Amino acid sequence: MITTIVLIQAEPKSIPKTAAALAGIEGVTDVYSVSGEWDLIAMVKVAEYAQIAEIVTEKFPTVPGLVRTTTLTAFRAYSKADLEQAWDLGVD
Amino acid sequence: MITTIVLIQAEPKSIPKTAAALAGIEGVTDVYSVSGEWDLIAMVKVAEYAQIAEIVTEKFPTVPGLVRTTTLTAFRAYSKADLEQAWDLGVD
Amino acid sequence: MITTIVLIQAEPKSIPKTAAALAGIEGVTDVYSVSGEWDLIAMVKVAEYAQIAEIVTEKFPTVPGLVRTTTLTAFRAYSKADLEQAWDLGVD
Amino acid sequence: MITTIVLIQAEPKSIPKTAAALAGIEGVTDVYSVSGEWDLIAMVKVAEYAQIAEIVTEKFPTVPGLVRTTTLTAFRAYSKADLEQAWDLGVD
Amino acid sequence: MITTIVLIQAEPKSIPKTAAALAGIEGVTDVYSVSGEWDLIAMVKVAEYAQIAEIVTEKFPTVPGLVRTTTLTAFRAYSKADLEQAWDLGVD
Amino acid sequence: MITTIVLIQAEPKSIPKTAAALAGIEGVTDVYSVSGEWDLIAMVKVAEYAQIAEIVTEKFPTVPGLVRTTTLTAFRAYSKADLEQAWDLGVD
Amino acid sequence: MITTIVLIQAEPKSIPKTAAALAGIEGVTDVYSVSGEWDLIAMVKVAEYAQIAEIVTEKFPTVPGLVRTTTLTAFRAYSKADLEQAWDLGVD
Amino acid sequence: MITTIVLIQAEPKSIPKTAAALAGIEGVTDVYSVSGEWDLIAMVKVAEYAQIAEIVTEKFPTVPGLVRTTTLTAFRAYSKADLEQAWDLGVD
Amino acid sequence: MITTIVLIQAEPKSIPKTAAALAGIEGVTDVYSVSGEWDLIAMVKVAEYAQIAEIVTEKFPTVPGLVRTTTLTAFRAYSKADLEQAWDLGVD
Amino acid sequence: MITTIVLIQAEPKSIPKTAAALAGIEGVTDVYSVSGEWDLIAMVKVAEYAQIAEIVTEKFPTVPGLVRTTTLTAFRAYSKADLEQAWDLGVD
Repeated sequence: MITTIVLIQAEPKSIPKTAAALAGIEGVTDVYSVSGEWDLIAMVKVAEYAQIAEIVTEKFPTVPGLVRTTTLTAFRAYSKADLEQAWDLGVD
Repeated sequence: MITTIVLIQAEPKSIPKTAAALAGIEGVTDVYSVSGEWDLIAMVKVAEYAQIAEIVTEKFPTVPGLVRTTTLTAFRAYSKADLEQAWDLGVD
Repeated sequence: MITTIVLIQAEPKSIPKTAAALAGIEGVTDVYSVSGEWDLIAMVKVAEYAQIAEIVTEKFPTVPGLVRTTTLTAFRAYSKADLEQAWDLGVD
Repeated sequence: MITTIVLIQAEPKSIPKTAAALAGIEGVTDVYSVSGEWDLIAMVKVAEYAQIAEIVTEKFPTVPGLVRTTTLTAFRAYSKADLEQAWDLGVD
Repeated sequence: MITTIVLIQAEPKSIPKTAAALAGIEGVTDVYSVSGEWDLIAMVKVAEYAQIAEIVTEKFPTVPGLVRTTTLTAFRAYSKADLEQAWDLGVD
Repeated sequence: MITTIVLIQAEPKSIPKTAAALAGIEGVTDVYSVSGEWDLIAMVKVAEYAQIAEIVTEKFPTVPGLVRTTTLTAFRAYSKADLEQAWDLGVD
Repeated sequence: MITTIVLIQAEPKSIPKTAAALAGIEGVTDVYSVSGEWDLIAMVKVAEYAQIAEIVTEKFPTVPGLVRTTTLTAFRAYSKADLEQAWDLGVD
Repeated sequence: MITTIVLIQAEPKSIPKTAAALAGIEGVTDVYSVSGEWDLIAMVKVAEYAQIAEIVTEKFPTVPGLVRTTTLTAFRAYSKADLEQAWDLGVD
Repeated sequence: MITTIVLIQAEPKSIPKTAAALAGIEGVTDVYSVSGEWDLIAMVKVAEYAQIAEIVTEKFPTVPGLVRTTTLTAFRAYSKADLEQAWDLGVD
Repeated sequence: MITTIVLIQAEPKSIPKTAAALAGIEGVTDVYSVSGEWDLIAMVKVAEYAQIAEIVTEKFPTVPGLVRTTTLTAFRAYSKADLEQAWDLGVD
């Protein structure tokens, strides 16, 4: 699966509704309201790379209260297994 | 569980090793190399809020190649169920 | 208690009224008008982590004059006691 | 009392020690490690405005691990009492 | 040919239409929807330097949904041939 | 093919050599020195999404003179054909 | 006296009028139109720290054409006398 | 006289010494340590425009502890007299 | 003569007209449409420093399509003659 | 001729020498020390577009004291003649 992390600024008054609407879109696995400069973070997981365009540039913009997004596509996911392969990093 | 999303800038030459080391830390569920201004994103999930401080301000800084982090704590996770509760948003 | 510091930009003409309204919200302990790029800072203290979402993403946005917020959640509070534990830092 | 809120960037590896040292300085009431772009926030409360210069521009810089600070001086503190004075804001 | 890379922010709801319209302009060879802070990237290739002004400052602004652009003009294109000329860089 | 556009800051003194070295990497189709805040732009085209990670996070950092990169992955490429499908935009 | 320097962005068409209006406010000693990112700089001098709040957060916002301000409160004023006290800095 | 306002970032440990040294330079009338993103503000007043270059680009850089400056030249100074000339702005 | 360089953001649809109008203002010697974050650059040359205020803060804002400006006043102009005076810099 | 405007940050202590050295480079017509965030501005005029690459990416980086540059290439120069062609803009 290809993971994409979307940082979202929403209208302050509609954060819960915008979040709930995003969570209803096919391919969106999680939506969090978060601290910091962004209001929401959506996690998108798809089988085919081509599906990202439809979700992020066609479905997301239809959600009321959505102001601005920055999309970070994940190139690779790392796990504990990668750690055993890597050299010893002295992390307790 | 409380989720925290950590945006990470790493030394360009050590991205894979830094990612693998982060993935080995207790509480870290996923580490992705990503497009955009940040190099890595780490997902941290803990039972107790107090655990975040130890992971993010004490364990992460010991990882070689880690340059700068911005931590976004998740206040609430939204799901499809929330969508049924919310009013109809005309999202197909 | 979990502390959250909220940096707030408000409509210039409504800073005092916006500040007074924020101060009336349950969980808000202090509101200051401040120098610098932000107009107001609100201190929020809650017993349960889950309460932050309701205050910051549902109550704050209903306050007239509130334009933009950035929320900083406190992981740990440090006190003089921590200083005695730490190594000698040569601070008079 | 005059309140000053100091946003602090510290060396990642020395955040706990830097925080503890700051907490030991006369006039500093609280130090928090926080999420977001800054690492620490220090709350300073003094009786005389002139004391801020000594604490922020002379004492803070002697603390090991301190990289950069932005100081926000509080002009006024607002409380619930101010709310009763202000017009009804329809905040439950 | 002189290449120009135009970074484009568009109205979220009209990204596909804006992209298609840009692709129809003489001199535009490719238009991509992209991750990150920008929504679209247009590649412009012209024979004469003077043509850039007409495309970027006169044609682009007529495209509906176009919000802001930053234009990067390419001074030189580098190819593998340049690599053989350059000294050995130890790149496998 | 999946296209990725990499914005690159390089050591001022080594721009031509860094560009030539990047052009020699498998998957890199073009490298331009450009005006504006960035020094170089590299165009990467791969058949499989998984190849991007290896090129951008493992090969690029080995190139001497490379300081910082921001990678924009292309979701979709638009062409004149898309224009005929879209509504008439009154663009001569 | 406590000095405060207020950096001001004004509506481009009303800079002279906005400046003249600011100059008429009690406590404002100088107003300059300036080069750079800001349009105006106002110098405020007051006897009591508490007066700053009234001038900056209540009077300034009533001035037509005022868009955004950033207030820098002065902690200490340095003079030539301080120089004699300080060590020799080799400044001719 | 032509007024110039210089925003200064200094080495945190040398703010008082840097301020005192700046205050000793011919043409500098005031130096303040300030809140916010900058550490110091220097006010420079000269009779001839040509003198600014010598003070700001030749004298200032010789002062130890000076890291970065942004210079704002004042085009015009506004006073209460200008207010009487301007239209009534309803400022009490 | 005193030179001032004005960086200008204009309404995308009116760049040519805004540029032509600026070029018609007394004291403006050149207006360029440019690549990068700004749309236009105007070169202003005046005999007396006081003239800058009138041109930049009173004439420019009357030009239709002008959105935002940042003005850079030139302290000194350097020429080849200065090079002969300076030490040998090994520039071929 | 094709005009290019280069915004330059230089080592504070070497601004005059860096400016003089830049002024000695073929194609550079003017170099100014300026107010604001940048230290110097160089005006480059060349007959052939290809010459810009050599001057900006190969000659400039050899000049001692040069830290960072942002190059703005001019697409078109506007003059008073363009004003007569444009519609009446009511600019006295």
